[in-house]
Amino acid sequence: MTGQIGVDELESFIIELLQAAGLTPTNARTTAKVYIRATLRGVGHHDINDLANRLSLIESGRVKPNPNITLLHKYQAVESYDGDNGLGEICCSFIMEQAMRLAGEYGIGFCTVRHSNHFLAASPYAEQAAEKDYLGLIYSRAVNTMGAPGASRNFLGNNPFGFAVMSDQGFPLMLDISMAYSSYGKLKEKIKAGGTVPDYWGMNANHQPTSDPKEILQGGMFNPLAGHKGFGLALLGEIMTGVLSNGEILDETNPNIPSPEISSQTAIAIKIAALMPVEYFQARVSDIINRVKDLEPDVKMPGRQSSENKKRYLSQGIELDPALVARLNEWAAKLKVSPLPGLAGSK
Amino acid sequence: MTGQIGVDELESFIIELLQAAGLTPTNARTTAKVYIRATLRGVGHHDINDLANRLSLIESGRVKPNPNITLLHKYQAVESYDGDNGLGEICCSFIMEQAMRLAGEYGIGFCTVRHSNHFLAASPYAEQAAEKDYLGLIYSRAVNTMGAPGASRNFLGNNPFGFAVMSDQGFPLMLDISMAYSSYGKLKEKIKAGGTVPDYWGMNANHQPTSDPKEILQGGMFNPLAGHKGFGLALLGEIMTGVLSNGEILDETNPNIPSPEISSQTAIAIKIAALMPVEYFQARVSDIINRVKDLEPDVKMPGRQSSENKKRYLSQGIELDPALVARLNEWAAKLKVSPLPGLAGSK
Repeated sequence: MTGQIGVDELESFIIELLQAAGLTPTNARTTAKVYIRATLRGVGHHDINDLANRLSLIESGRVKPNPNITLLHKYQAVESYDGDNGLGEICCSFIMEQAMRLAGEYGIGFCTVRHSNHFLAASPYAEQAAEKDYLGLIYSRAVNTMGAPGASRNFLGNNPFGFAVMSDQGFPLMLDISMAYSSYGKLKEKIKAGGTVPDYWGMNANHQPTSDPKEILQGGMFNPLAGHKGFGLALLGEIMTGVLSNGEILDETNPNIPSPEISSQTAIAIKIAALMPVEYFQARVSDIINRVKDLEPDVKMPGRQSSENKKRYLSQGIELDPALVARLNEWAAKLKVSPLPGLAGSK
Repeated sequence: MTGQIGVDELESFIIELLQAAGLTPTNARTTAKVYIRATLRGVGHHDINDLANRLSLIESGRVKPNPNITLLHKYQAVESYDGDNGLGEICCSFIMEQAMRLAGEYGIGFCTVRHSNHFLAASPYAEQAAEKDYLGLIYSRAVNTMGAPGASRNFLGNNPFGFAVMSDQGFPLMLDISMAYSSYGKLKEKIKAGGTVPDYWGMNANHQPTSDPKEILQGGMFNPLAGHKGFGLALLGEIMTGVLSNGEILDETNPNIPSPEISSQTAIAIKIAALMPVEYFQARVSDIINRVKDLEPDVKMPGRQSSENKKRYLSQGIELDPALVARLNEWAAKLKVSPLPGLAGSK
């Protein structure tokens, strides 16, 4: 059976799982918050579906549950840290928090972390900033799942990027994108549904455009969005994160890091009140939303659908896929945590 | 006849034209530098080809040649200015200079200007920062030449963006892009060449995909890159510039501004030396260039072609199209400036 689970209940369950996996209460709460933020968007990937994978990485010792994040360099509004191969969710929540602190003092703050791990998604950190009246920008590098015009294979990360700002309509304008047209997850969905994809999304193993998602996955290449444009934006991500954090770039490895990926992230926060009253700013963001609606009613504003999903989940609970519940409850059993209540696998 | 003209000669000619059009010597030099930087890239648009248009705007009084740029707000590393309906080239050189000054002090600097005008291109300002050992980011809003998924027409600017960082190979990694697949100029080139375009570049007047560039231009719509991704990035541009500068957004007008467009730009500079020695940073940027070359020799790095063109022009001179030379020399005659030497239209 499936059923609705309350958001608070789900958050408590995640916190308990993470604490049982070794995270301190503070780190468990921070990490759970990222999963809740991501899951409330309702996009169905890069959210609670990835939690079991993180628990595996912690269990195997490849990612640290309680990293000792240390300052590398500081110059007024700019700071860089070493993430100690810690959970990306912890490292990245940390750098956005520091970027906000710096922006509070200087109007804008820049904070980067090397030796981090996968950050799950961009939006949780951008939203974290927007809710406190900052414009939040977040960059991440990623493992090589993208090519470029002229390339024969995936050699660069699709380097995700996100931003968020608050409107006065109760939801942020928020974007969370990679620099490729598609991802492994997206193509697997397409294959499952028996569909094809636009032939500019990727190449087959013979470097030819293909509309068969299987061909892209089997030795083919993911195209960056709009060719050289997405490639250039992904390189900016690589510089913002891997280079400025003094971390790894492209296919570089590090003998001291057992994690399957060596990530870096960078957060930039801009204090809205440095330039205008927060209420005025939010009204202007809403002006954008309202004017677009007036001009082109069928255009979807980034962040609106996520916001509607969030409201629904908060009032009605979240419906989780039975396979996901079963997988999480296996971890619950293993870690001796009460299973998700009222759902498949619960007592 | 056409011929090669030396870069210094061309720069002097532009300075003389601009001074004769009313710019102060300093403003003329600043503006000429932007045209030279843009022209040396060798892309053939958004460069010297646009100078005559700027001279027309100055002559008609629609854009001010010597704006009185005034501070609106300041909070440590963040500043906003009013551009007094001045030339975009002057306003935008100014804000990048201020962003660099702020970054020198605080590690990162943010500077925005409203009531500016078209900035010509992103790369001159990004390059301006990179040459002084900053990472330069530049955002601009633009007139409505782009649509969005679900829209029926162009209602939003294609909001250009650029960045640059210096390598130790004598050229910067540099990107200068709009958030649309194509532009009026690009489509006109395609039409002139009798070619078609990918059918995801735009829509016809009936909101259907078309590969006929004429249909996109005749009441059709320019698509943002990768649909919602480019749309979201263009909205970020609108927020970064129009909203944070306290300027206009989308289709808003301003009764006090006679210019055909009411632009805003935003510059962010990051002081490299705040995080690591400049030489080390440049070596790491070169590591990216070299590793990509090793992995995928056919991939073109953004900025490399521009750099090669620049070197060639500096040593051999620039060959200008006779129609362009004739047009510029008409302005030279009108403004009583010596025409381009040794070329069509010269004495």
